[in-house]
Amino acid sequence: MAENLARDRGTATSAAHCRAQIRAGQHPRPTAGLAPGHVQANLMVLPRDLADEFLLFCQRNPKPCPLLAVTQPGQYDVPDLGDDIDLRTDIPRYRVWRDGELIDEPSDVKSWWRDDLVSFLIGCSFSFEEALLADGLDVRHISQGRNVPMYRTDIATRPAGRLEGPLVVSMRPFRAADAIRAIQITSRFPSVHGAPIHLGDPSLIGIRDLDQPDYGETVEIRPGEIPVFWACGVTPQSIIRHVRPEFSITHAPGHMLITDNLNSRLATL
Amino acid sequence: MAENLARDRGTATSAAHCRAQIRAGQHPRPTAGLAPGHVQANLMVLPRDLADEFLLFCQRNPKPCPLLAVTQPGQYDVPDLGDDIDLRTDIPRYRVWRDGELIDEPSDVKSWWRDDLVSFLIGCSFSFEEALLADGLDVRHISQGRNVPMYRTDIATRPAGRLEGPLVVSMRPFRAADAIRAIQITSRFPSVHGAPIHLGDPSLIGIRDLDQPDYGETVEIRPGEIPVFWACGVTPQSIIRHVRPEFSITHAPGHMLITDNLNSRLATL
Repeated sequence: MAENLARDRGTATSAAHCRAQIRAGQHPRPTAGLAPGHVQANLMVLPRDLADEFLLFCQRNPKPCPLLAVTQPGQYDVPDLGDDIDLRTDIPRYRVWRDGELIDEPSDVKSWWRDDLVSFLIGCSFSFEEALLADGLDVRHISQGRNVPMYRTDIATRPAGRLEGPLVVSMRPFRAADAIRAIQITSRFPSVHGAPIHLGDPSLIGIRDLDQPDYGETVEIRPGEIPVFWACGVTPQSIIRHVRPEFSITHAPGHMLITDNLNSRLATL
Repeated sequence: MAENLARDRGTATSAAHCRAQIRAGQHPRPTAGLAPGHVQANLMVLPRDLADEFLLFCQRNPKPCPLLAVTQPGQYDVPDLGDDIDLRTDIPRYRVWRDGELIDEPSDVKSWWRDDLVSFLIGCSFSFEEALLADGLDVRHISQGRNVPMYRTDIATRPAGRLEGPLVVSMRPFRAADAIRAIQITSRFPSVHGAPIHLGDPSLIGIRDLDQPDYGETVEIRPGEIPVFWACGVTPQSIIRHVRPEFSITHAPGHMLITDNLNSRLATL
Protein backbone atom coordinates (compact mmCIF):
# COMPACT_ATOMS: atom_id res chain seq x y z
CA MET A 1 0.00 0.00 0.00
CA ALA A 2 2.80 2.40 0.88
CA GLU A 3 4.31 1.48 -2.46
CA ASN A 4 1.00 2.18 -4.21
CA LEU A 5 0.78 5.64 -2.68
CA ALA A 6 4.45 6.31 -3.35
CA ARG A 7 4.02 5.40 -7.00
CA ASP A 8 1.17 7.88 -7.28
CA ARG A 9 3.28 10.79 -6.03
CA GLY A 10 3.68 13.57 -8.54
CA THR A 11 0.68 12.41 -10.56
CA ALA A 12 -2.94 13.36 -10.17
CA THR A 13 -3.39 11.19 -7.08
CA SER A 14 -6.94 11.55 -5.93
CA ALA A 15 -7.23 13.12 -2.51
CA ALA A 16 -10.37 11.05 -1.91
CA HIS A 17 -8.42 7.89 -2.75
CA CYS A 18 -5.74 8.79 -0.19
CA ARG A 19 -8.38 9.48 2.45
CA ALA A 20 -10.02 6.12 1.72
CA GLN A 21 -6.73 4.32 2.22
CA ILE A 22 -6.06 6.24 5.44
CA ARG A 23 -9.60 5.49 6.64
CA ALA A 24 -8.95 1.77 5.97
CA GLY A 25 -5.79 1.91 8.10
CA GLN A 26 -3.58 1.36 5.08
CA HIS A 27 -1.38 4.46 5.54
CA PRO A 28 -0.41 4.72 9.24
CA ARG A 29 2.29 7.29 8.56
CA PRO A 30 2.83 11.05 8.04
CA THR A 31 1.04 12.50 5.06
CA ALA A 32 3.85 14.62 3.58
CA GLY A 33 4.00 14.08 -0.17
CA LEU A 34 0.55 12.46 -0.42
CA ALA A 35 -1.95 13.81 -2.97
CA PRO A 36 0.43 16.44 -4.40
CA GLY A 37 -1.20 19.77 -5.08
CA HIS A 38 -3.89 19.25 -2.43
CA VAL A 39 -4.29 21.28 0.73
CA GLN A 40 -3.52 19.44 3.96
CA ALA A 41 -4.87 20.68 7.27
CA ASN A 42 -4.08 20.68 10.98
CA LEU A 43 -6.91 19.48 13.24
CA MET A 44 -7.90 20.96 16.60
CA VAL A 45 -11.02 19.54 18.28
CA LEU A 46 -12.37 21.26 21.40
CA PRO A 47 -15.50 21.05 23.54
CA ARG A 48 -18.07 23.72 22.71
CA ASP A 49 -17.22 25.38 26.04
CA LEU A 50 -13.80 26.46 24.75
CA ALA A 51 -14.63 26.65 21.06
CA ASP A 52 -15.85 30.25 21.00
CA GLU A 53 -12.70 31.45 22.68
CA PHE A 54 -10.57 29.47 20.28
CA LEU A 55 -12.44 30.88 17.29
CA LEU A 56 -11.80 34.38 18.59
CA PHE A 57 -8.15 33.49 19.21
CA CYS A 58 -7.81 32.40 15.58
CA GLN A 59 -9.48 35.58 14.37
CA ARG A 60 -7.01 37.64 16.39
CA ASN A 61 -3.98 35.57 15.37
CA PRO A 62 -4.49 34.71 11.71
CA LYS A 63 -0.81 34.15 10.92
CA PRO A 64 -0.28 31.17 13.26
CA CYS A 65 -3.96 30.07 13.10
CA PRO A 66 -5.25 30.45 9.55
CA LEU A 67 -8.69 28.82 9.66
CA LEU A 68 -9.75 26.76 6.64
CA ALA A 69 -12.99 25.50 8.18
CA VAL A 70 -14.91 25.27 11.46
CA THR A 71 -17.65 22.70 12.16
CA GLN A 72 -20.87 22.87 14.14
CA PRO A 73 -20.79 21.03 17.51
CA GLY A 74 -20.78 17.27 16.90
CA GLN A 75 -20.36 17.60 13.14
CA TYR A 76 -17.64 15.42 11.63
CA ASP A 77 -18.04 16.04 7.93
CA VAL A 78 -16.52 19.15 6.30
CA PRO A 79 -18.14 19.69 2.91
CA ASP A 80 -16.03 22.82 2.32
CA LEU A 81 -12.88 20.71 2.28
CA GLY A 82 -14.11 17.47 0.65
CA ASP A 83 -17.25 15.57 -0.22
CA ASP A 84 -16.73 12.47 1.91
CA ILE A 85 -14.56 13.66 4.80
CA ASP A 86 -15.04 11.97 8.17
CA LEU A 87 -12.94 13.83 10.72
CA ARG A 88 -13.08 10.83 13.07
CA THR A 89 -11.31 8.44 10.69
CA ASP A 90 -9.53 10.30 7.89
CA ILE A 91 -6.34 11.23 9.69
CA PRO A 92 -3.69 8.51 10.04
CA ARG A 93 -2.94 9.19 13.68
CA TYR A 94 -4.70 11.28 16.32
CA ARG A 95 -3.78 12.51 19.75
CA VAL A 96 -6.40 12.48 22.49
CA TRP A 97 -5.86 14.77 25.47
CA ARG A 98 -7.52 14.81 28.90
CA ASP A 99 -6.79 17.74 31.22
CA GLY A 100 -3.81 18.58 29.03
CA GLU A 101 -2.28 15.07 29.26
CA LEU A 102 -1.88 12.81 26.25
CA ILE A 103 -4.02 9.74 26.90
CA ASP A 104 -4.26 7.99 23.52
CA GLU A 105 -2.77 8.00 20.00
CA PRO A 106 -5.38 6.09 18.02
CA SER A 107 -5.81 5.73 14.26
CA ASP A 108 -9.45 6.77 14.59
CA VAL A 109 -11.43 8.64 17.24
CA LYS A 110 -14.91 7.17 16.73
CA SER A 111 -14.94 5.84 20.27
CA TRP A 112 -13.87 9.24 21.63
CA TRP A 113 -16.35 11.33 19.68
CA ARG A 114 -18.86 13.55 21.49
CA ASP A 115 -21.79 15.68 20.39
CA ASP A 116 -20.29 18.84 21.87
CA LEU A 117 -16.99 18.70 19.93
CA VAL A 118 -16.16 21.54 17.55
CA SER A 119 -13.46 20.92 14.94
CA PHE A 120 -11.08 23.56 13.62
CA LEU A 121 -9.17 22.88 10.40
CA ILE A 122 -6.08 25.07 10.22
CA GLY A 123 -3.84 25.75 7.24
CA CYS A 124 -0.48 24.01 7.06
CA SER A 125 2.91 25.06 5.71
CA PHE A 126 2.92 22.03 3.36
CA SER A 127 0.92 24.24 0.99
CA PHE A 128 3.53 26.97 0.69
CA GLU A 129 6.45 24.53 0.84
CA GLU A 130 5.09 22.92 -2.32
CA ALA A 131 5.23 26.36 -3.98
CA LEU A 132 8.79 26.94 -2.70
CA LEU A 133 9.95 23.58 -4.08
CA ALA A 134 8.20 24.25 -7.40
CA ASP A 135 10.23 27.46 -7.62
CA GLY A 136 13.47 25.51 -7.28
CA LEU A 137 14.26 26.55 -3.71
CA ASP A 138 15.99 24.15 -1.32
CA VAL A 139 13.65 23.65 1.64
CA ARG A 140 16.26 22.32 4.01
CA HIS A 141 14.24 20.06 6.32
CA ILE A 142 12.72 18.41 3.24
CA SER A 143 16.07 17.92 1.49
CA GLN A 144 17.46 16.59 4.78
CA GLY A 145 14.44 14.34 5.37
CA ARG A 146 13.63 15.84 8.76
CA ASN A 147 10.77 17.57 10.54
CA VAL A 148 10.86 21.34 10.31
CA PRO A 149 12.49 22.96 13.39
CA MET A 150 10.04 24.96 15.50
CA TYR A 151 10.71 27.40 18.33
CA ARG A 152 8.75 29.19 21.02
CA THR A 153 9.40 32.93 20.73
CA ASP A 154 8.98 35.86 23.11
CA ILE A 155 6.35 37.32 20.78
CA ALA A 156 2.99 37.26 22.57
CA THR A 157 -0.10 36.18 20.66
CA ARG A 158 -3.16 38.38 21.07
CA PRO A 159 -5.16 36.81 23.92
CA ALA A 160 -8.76 35.64 23.68
CA GLY A 161 -10.49 34.70 26.95
CA ARG A 162 -8.41 32.02 28.62
CA LEU A 163 -6.18 31.58 25.58
CA GLU A 164 -2.84 33.34 25.61
CA GLY A 165 0.80 32.50 25.21
CA PRO A 166 3.82 32.83 22.96
CA LEU A 167 3.94 32.54 19.19
CA VAL A 168 5.62 29.40 17.87
CA VAL A 169 7.58 29.76 14.62
CA SER A 170 9.02 27.34 12.09
CA MET A 171 12.44 28.08 10.58
CA ARG A 172 13.84 27.50 7.09
CA PRO A 173 17.34 28.73 6.19
CA PHE A 174 18.00 30.37 2.82
CA ARG A 175 20.66 32.41 1.08
CA ALA A 176 19.55 36.06 0.97
CA ALA A 177 18.32 36.03 -2.64
CA ASP A 178 16.33 32.85 -1.97
CA ALA A 179 14.97 34.33 1.27
CA ILE A 180 13.67 37.31 -0.72
CA ARG A 181 12.08 34.92 -3.23
CA ALA A 182 10.58 32.84 -0.40
CA ILE A 183 9.02 36.00 1.06
CA GLN A 184 7.46 36.78 -2.31
CA ILE A 185 6.10 33.27 -2.77
CA THR A 186 4.72 32.77 0.74
CA SER A 187 3.11 36.24 0.65
CA ARG A 188 0.79 34.77 -1.96
CA PHE A 189 -0.50 32.23 0.60
CA PRO A 190 -2.01 34.23 3.47
CA SER A 191 -4.32 31.37 4.42
CA VAL A 192 -1.36 29.06 5.11
CA HIS A 193 0.75 31.34 7.36
CA GLY A 194 1.71 33.80 4.60
CA ALA A 195 4.91 35.85 4.70
CA PRO A 196 7.57 35.23 7.35
CA ILE A 197 7.34 37.18 10.59
CA HIS A 198 11.11 37.49 11.13
CA LEU A 199 14.48 36.79 9.54
CA GLY A 200 18.06 37.01 10.73
CA ASP A 201 19.08 37.28 14.39
CA PRO A 202 17.01 34.69 16.33
CA SER A 203 17.65 36.41 19.68
CA LEU A 204 15.53 39.37 18.56
CA ILE A 205 12.45 37.14 18.89
CA GLY A 206 13.61 35.32 22.00
CA ILE A 207 15.19 32.23 20.43
CA ARG A 208 18.39 31.42 22.27
CA ASP A 209 19.76 28.48 20.28
CA LEU A 210 18.74 27.38 16.79
CA ASP A 211 20.25 23.97 17.56
CA GLN A 212 17.68 23.43 20.33
CA PRO A 213 14.26 23.58 18.66
CA ASP A 214 11.25 23.23 20.97
CA TYR A 215 9.50 21.01 18.40
CA GLY A 216 10.73 19.13 15.34
CA GLU A 217 14.38 18.62 14.46
CA THR A 218 17.42 20.80 13.77
CA VAL A 219 18.50 21.46 10.19
CA GLU A 220 21.84 22.51 8.77
CA ILE A 221 22.38 26.26 8.26
CA ARG A 222 25.17 26.79 5.74
CA PRO A 223 27.58 29.76 5.61
CA GLY A 224 25.91 32.83 4.16
CA GLU A 225 22.43 31.52 4.91
CA ILE A 226 19.86 33.46 6.91
CA PRO A 227 17.27 31.79 9.16
CA VAL A 228 13.76 32.80 8.08
CA PHE A 229 10.87 32.38 10.53
CA TRP A 230 7.20 31.75 9.77
CA ALA A 231 4.28 31.74 12.21
CA CYS A 232 3.56 28.09 12.92
CA GLY A 233 0.40 26.03 13.24
CA VAL A 234 1.82 24.44 16.39
CA THR A 235 1.07 27.73 18.19
CA PRO A 236 -2.57 26.84 19.02
CA GLN A 237 -1.62 23.38 20.31
CA SER A 238 1.07 24.95 22.47
CA ILE A 239 -1.44 27.45 23.84
CA ILE A 240 -4.26 24.95 24.35
CA ARG A 241 -1.90 22.77 26.33
CA HIS A 242 -1.51 25.67 28.78
CA VAL A 243 -5.26 25.82 29.39
CA ARG A 244 -5.51 22.05 29.95
CA PRO A 245 -9.08 21.66 28.65
CA GLU A 246 -10.88 18.66 30.15
CA PHE A 247 -10.87 17.07 26.69
CA SER A 248 -9.40 17.72 23.25
CA ILE A 249 -8.30 15.90 20.12
CA THR A 250 -5.58 16.91 17.65
CA HIS A 251 -3.85 15.25 14.73
CA ALA A 252 -0.47 13.69 15.55
CA PRO A 253 2.39 15.86 14.21
CA GLY A 254 2.82 15.39 10.46
CA HIS A 255 -0.37 13.29 10.19
CA MET A 256 -2.67 15.74 8.48
CA LEU A 257 -6.12 15.81 6.92
CA ILE A 258 -5.90 15.61 3.12
CA THR A 259 -8.53 17.82 1.52
CA ASP A 260 -9.96 18.01 -2.00
CA ASN A 261 -8.93 21.65 -2.29
CA LEU A 262 -5.96 22.69 -4.40
CA ASN A 263 -2.99 24.58 -2.94
CA SER A 264 -2.96 26.81 -6.01
CA ARG A 265 -6.46 27.98 -5.08
CA LEU A 266 -5.05 29.31 -1.79
CA ALA A 267 -2.77 31.69 -3.70
CA THR A 268 -4.10 35.23 -3.75
CA LEU A 269 -2.53 35.89 -7.13
CA MET B 1 9.19 79.59 -5.90
CA ALA B 2 10.64 76.96 -3.64
CA GLU B 3 7.98 77.95 -1.15
CA ASN B 4 5.27 77.66 -3.77
CA LEU B 5 6.36 74.18 -4.73
CA ALA B 6 6.80 73.20 -1.08
CA ARG B 7 3.27 74.34 -0.31
CA ASP B 8 1.96 72.16 -3.09
CA ARG B 9 3.53 68.99 -1.74
CA GLY B 10 1.04 66.33 -0.82
CA THR B 11 -1.68 67.87 -2.97
CA ALA B 12 -2.46 67.21 -6.60
CA THR B 13 0.48 69.26 -7.83
CA SER B 14 0.47 69.13 -11.59
CA ALA B 15 3.50 67.39 -13.05
CA ALA B 16 3.25 69.65 -16.10
CA HIS B 17 3.31 72.70 -13.82
CA CYS B 18 6.48 71.44 -12.12
CA ARG B 19 8.12 70.80 -15.49
CA ALA B 20 7.18 74.32 -16.63
CA GLN B 21 8.81 75.83 -13.56
CA ILE B 22 11.91 73.71 -14.04
CA ARG B 23 12.04 74.66 -17.73
CA ALA B 24 11.87 78.33 -16.73
CA GLY B 25 14.84 77.85 -14.39
CA GLN B 26 12.69 78.38 -11.30
CA HIS B 27 13.57 75.11 -9.53
CA PRO B 28 17.35 74.58 -9.77
CA ARG B 29 17.35 71.85 -7.12
CA PRO B 30 16.75 68.10 -6.67
CA THR B 31 13.24 66.94 -7.52
CA ALA B 32 12.55 64.70 -4.49
CA GLY B 33 9.06 65.44 -3.18
CA LEU B 34 7.89 67.34 -6.27
CA ALA B 35 4.62 66.34 -7.93
CA PRO B 36 3.80 63.62 -5.37
CA GLY B 37 2.39 60.45 -6.90
CA HIS B 38 4.11 61.02 -10.25
CA VAL B 39 6.85 58.86 -11.71
CA GLN B 40 10.28 60.47 -11.87
CA ALA B 41 12.90 59.13 -14.27
CA ASN B 42 16.66 58.87 -14.66
CA LEU B 43 18.02 60.15 -17.99
CA MET B 44 20.82 58.58 -20.04
CA VAL B 45 21.54 60.11 -23.45
CA LEU B 46 23.98 58.34 -25.79
CA PRO B 47 25.06 58.67 -29.42
CA ARG B 48 23.27 56.25 -31.75
CA ASP B 49 26.57 54.34 -32.07
CA LEU B 50 26.33 53.08 -28.48
CA ALA B 51 22.54 53.15 -28.13
CA ASP B 52 21.85 49.67 -29.47
CA GLU B 53 24.32 48.14 -27.06
CA PHE B 54 22.84 50.12 -24.18
CA LEU B 55 19.33 49.01 -25.11
CA LEU B 56 20.51 45.40 -25.08
CA PHE B 57 22.27 45.99 -21.76
CA CYS B 58 19.01 47.25 -20.25
CA GLN B 59 17.12 44.26 -21.63
CA ARG B 60 19.64 41.92 -19.99
CA ASN B 61 19.76 43.83 -16.70
CA PRO B 62 16.18 44.91 -16.02
CA LYS B 63 16.60 45.25 -12.24
CA PRO B 64 19.21 48.05 -12.31
CA CYS B 65 18.01 49.41 -15.69
CA PRO B 66 14.21 49.32 -15.85
CA LEU B 67 13.39 51.20 -19.05
CA LEU B 68 10.35 53.47 -19.02
CA ALA B 69 10.90 54.90 -22.51
CA VAL B 70 13.47 55.10 -25.33
CA THR B 71 13.47 57.81 -28.02
CA GLN B 72 14.36 57.78 -31.70
CA PRO B 73 17.72 59.42 -32.58
CA GLY B 74 17.44 63.19 -32.16
CA GLN B 75 13.97 63.01 -30.63
CA TYR B 76 13.56 65.07 -27.46
CA ASP B 77 9.87 64.70 -26.73
CA VAL B 78 8.55 61.59 -24.94
CA PRO B 79 4.78 61.35 -25.46
CA ASP B 80 4.65 58.11 -23.44
CA LEU B 81 5.74 59.99 -20.32
CA GLY B 82 4.05 63.38 -20.80
CA ASP B 83 2.42 65.56 -23.42
CA ASP B 84 4.82 68.49 -23.41
CA ILE B 85 8.15 66.99 -22.31
CA ASP B 86 11.32 68.51 -23.73
CA LEU B 87 14.24 66.36 -22.62
CA ARG B 88 16.65 69.23 -23.33
CA THR B 89 15.10 71.62 -20.79
CA ASP B 90 12.85 69.78 -18.33
CA ILE B 91 15.48 68.53 -15.91
CA PRO B 92 16.82 71.02 -13.33
CA ARG B 93 20.45 70.08 -13.80
CA TYR B 94 22.25 67.97 -16.40
CA ARG B 95 25.71 66.51 -16.65
CA VAL B 96 27.51 66.57 -19.99
CA TRP B 97 30.33 64.10 -20.54
CA ARG B 98 33.08 64.00 -23.17
CA ASP B 99 35.28 60.89 -23.36
CA GLY B 100 34.04 59.95 -19.90
CA GLU B 101 34.98 63.30 -18.34
CA LEU B 102 32.41 65.71 -16.89
CA ILE B 103 32.63 68.90 -18.96
CA ASP B 104 29.47 70.82 -18.03
CA GLU B 105 26.58 70.89 -15.54
CA PRO B 106 24.05 73.12 -17.30
CA SER B 107 20.39 73.71 -16.52
CA ASP B 108 19.48 72.94 -20.13
CA VAL B 109 21.27 71.06 -22.94
CA LYS B 110 19.83 72.80 -26.01
CA SER B 111 23.28 73.95 -27.05
CA TRP B 112 24.66 70.41 -26.65
CA TRP B 113 21.87 68.61 -28.51
CA ARG B 114 22.68 66.50 -31.58
CA ASP B 115 20.56 64.67 -34.13
CA ASP B 116 22.18 61.32 -33.34
CA LEU B 117 21.38 61.32 -29.60
CA VAL B 118 19.13 58.56 -28.22
CA SER B 119 17.53 59.12 -24.80
CA PHE B 120 16.81 56.40 -22.28
CA LEU B 121 14.37 57.10 -19.44
CA ILE B 122 15.00 54.71 -16.57
CA GLY B 123 12.80 54.01 -13.55
CA CYS B 124 13.78 55.50 -10.22
CA SER B 125 13.47 54.31 -6.64
CA PHE B 126 11.49 57.44 -5.72
CA SER B 127 8.46 55.51 -7.01
CA PHE B 128 8.77 52.62 -4.57
CA GLU B 129 9.98 54.83 -1.73
CA GLU B 130 6.69 56.70 -1.95
CA ALA B 131 4.90 53.36 -1.47
CA LEU B 132 7.16 52.45 1.49
CA LEU B 133 6.45 55.79 3.18
CA ALA B 134 2.72 55.43 2.50
CA ASP B 135 2.90 52.08 4.35
CA GLY B 136 4.36 53.79 7.41
CA LEU B 137 7.91 52.50 7.00
CA ASP B 138 10.88 54.64 8.04
CA VAL B 139 13.00 55.15 4.92
CA ARG B 140 16.15 56.17 6.72
CA HIS B 141 17.89 58.43 4.20
CA ILE B 142 14.63 60.35 3.80
CA SER B 143 14.02 60.69 7.55
CA GLN B 144 17.68 61.75 7.93
CA GLY B 145 17.44 64.16 4.99
CA ARG B 146 20.32 62.55 3.09
CA ASN B 147 21.01 60.96 -0.28
CA VAL B 148 20.55 57.19 -0.32
CA PRO B 149 23.85 55.30 0.20
CA MET B 150 24.95 53.37 -2.89
CA TYR B 151 27.67 50.74 -3.25
CA ARG B 152 29.49 48.95 -6.05
CA THR B 153 29.14 45.19 -5.54
CA ASP B 154 31.06 42.18 -6.83
CA ILE B 155 27.92 41.03 -8.67
CA ALA B 156 28.58 41.25 -12.42
CA THR B 157 25.93 42.65 -14.69
CA ARG B 158 25.19 40.66 -17.86
CA PRO B 159 27.42 42.21 -20.55
CA ALA B 160 26.14 43.62 -23.84
CA GLY B 161 28.79 44.51 -26.42
CA ARG B 162 31.23 46.96 -24.85
CA LEU B 163 29.06 47.39 -21.78
CA GLU B 164 29.98 45.41 -18.71
CA GLY B 165 30.77 46.00 -15.08
CA PRO B 166 29.55 45.58 -11.53
CA LEU B 167 26.03 46.05 -10.23
CA VAL B 168 25.54 49.13 -8.05
CA VAL B 169 23.03 48.81 -5.20
CA SER B 170 21.24 51.25 -2.92
CA MET B 171 20.80 50.34 0.75
CA ARG B 172 17.96 51.00 3.19
CA PRO B 173 18.08 49.57 6.75
CA PHE B 174 14.97 48.07 8.33
CA ARG B 175 13.98 45.95 11.29
CA ALA B 176 13.27 42.39 10.09
CA ALA B 177 9.49 42.70 10.04
CA ASP B 178 9.74 45.97 8.10
CA ALA B 179 12.30 44.43 5.73
CA ILE B 180 9.79 41.68 4.96
CA ARG B 181 7.09 44.31 4.36
CA ALA B 182 9.48 46.34 2.16
CA ILE B 183 10.15 43.23 0.07
CA GLN B 184 6.42 42.73 -0.41
CA ILE B 185 5.82 46.35 -1.38
CA THR B 186 8.76 46.76 -3.77
CA SER B 187 7.92 43.42 -5.43
CA ARG B 188 4.84 45.21 -6.77
CA PHE B 189 7.07 47.68 -8.64
CA PRO B 190 9.18 45.63 -11.07
CA SER B 191 9.57 48.61 -13.42
CA VAL B 192 11.30 50.64 -10.72
CA HIS B 193 13.91 48.11 -9.51
CA GLY B 194 11.42 45.73 -7.88
CA ALA B 195 12.35 43.47 -4.96
CA PRO B 196 15.73 43.74 -3.23
CA ILE B 197 18.59 41.65 -4.55
CA HIS B 198 20.23 41.05 -1.15
CA LEU B 199 19.82 41.57 2.55
CA GLY B 200 22.01 41.03 5.60
CA ASP B 201 25.79 40.49 5.41
CA PRO B 202 27.18 43.13 2.98
CA SER B 203 30.44 41.19 2.46
CA LEU B 204 28.50 38.46 0.63
CA ILE B 205 28.03 40.89 -2.28
CA GLY B 206 31.47 42.46 -2.07
CA ILE B 207 30.70 45.49 0.09
CA ARG B 208 33.47 45.97 2.62
CA ASP B 209 32.22 48.90 4.68
CA LEU B 210 28.68 50.25 4.85
CA ASP B 211 30.12 53.51 6.23
CA GLN B 212 31.98 54.07 2.94
CA PRO B 213 29.34 54.27 0.21
CA ASP B 214 30.62 54.69 -3.35
CA TYR B 215 27.83 57.20 -4.10
CA GLY B 216 25.41 59.14 -1.88
CA GLU B 217 25.76 59.40 1.89
CA THR B 218 25.88 57.07 4.87
CA VAL B 219 22.77 56.52 6.97
CA GLU B 220 22.36 55.30 10.52
CA ILE B 221 21.77 51.56 11.01
CA ARG B 222 20.20 50.96 14.42
CA PRO B 223 20.59 47.85 16.61
CA GLY B 224 18.48 44.99 15.29
CA GLU B 225 18.23 46.50 11.82
CA ILE B 226 19.20 44.66 8.65
CA PRO B 227 20.67 46.38 5.59
CA VAL B 228 18.50 45.68 2.55
CA PHE B 229 19.97 46.18 -0.93
CA TRP B 230 18.16 47.11 -4.15
CA ALA B 231 19.56 47.18 -7.68
CA CYS B 232 20.30 50.85 -8.41
CA GLY B 233 19.78 53.10 -11.41
CA VAL B 234 23.32 54.43 -10.95
CA THR B 235 24.56 51.11 -12.39
CA PRO B 236 24.28 52.22 -16.05
CA GLN B 237 26.07 55.52 -15.37
CA SER B 238 28.83 53.63 -13.58
CA ILE B 239 29.17 51.26 -16.51
CA ILE B 240 28.97 53.91 -19.22
CA ARG B 241 31.76 55.81 -17.49
CA HIS B 242 33.99 52.76 -18.01
CA VAL B 243 33.40 52.83 -21.75
CA ARG B 244 34.14 56.56 -21.98
CA PRO B 245 31.84 57.29 -24.94
CA GLU B 246 32.93 60.34 -26.94
CA PHE B 247 29.76 62.12 -25.78
CA SER B 248 26.90 61.55 -23.37
CA ILE B 249 24.41 63.45 -21.24
CA THR B 250 22.82 62.38 -17.96
CA HIS B 251 20.72 64.05 -15.30
CA ALA B 252 22.64 65.31 -12.27
CA PRO B 253 22.08 63.01 -9.26
CA GLY B 254 18.68 63.65 -7.67
CA HIS B 255 17.63 66.02 -10.48
CA MET B 256 15.11 63.81 -12.29
CA LEU B 257 12.57 64.10 -15.08
CA ILE B 258 9.06 64.49 -13.66
CA THR B 259 6.55 62.58 -15.80
CA ASP B 260 2.76 62.69 -16.07
CA ASN B 261 2.52 58.99 -15.20
CA LEU B 262 1.37 57.85 -11.78
CA ASN B 263 3.51 55.68 -9.51
CA SER B 264 0.44 53.61 -8.65
CA ARG B 265 0.16 52.67 -12.33
CA LEU B 266 3.61 51.04 -12.09
CA ALA B 267 2.33 48.60 -9.46
CA THR B 268 1.62 45.17 -10.89
CA LEU B 269 -1.16 44.59 -8.37
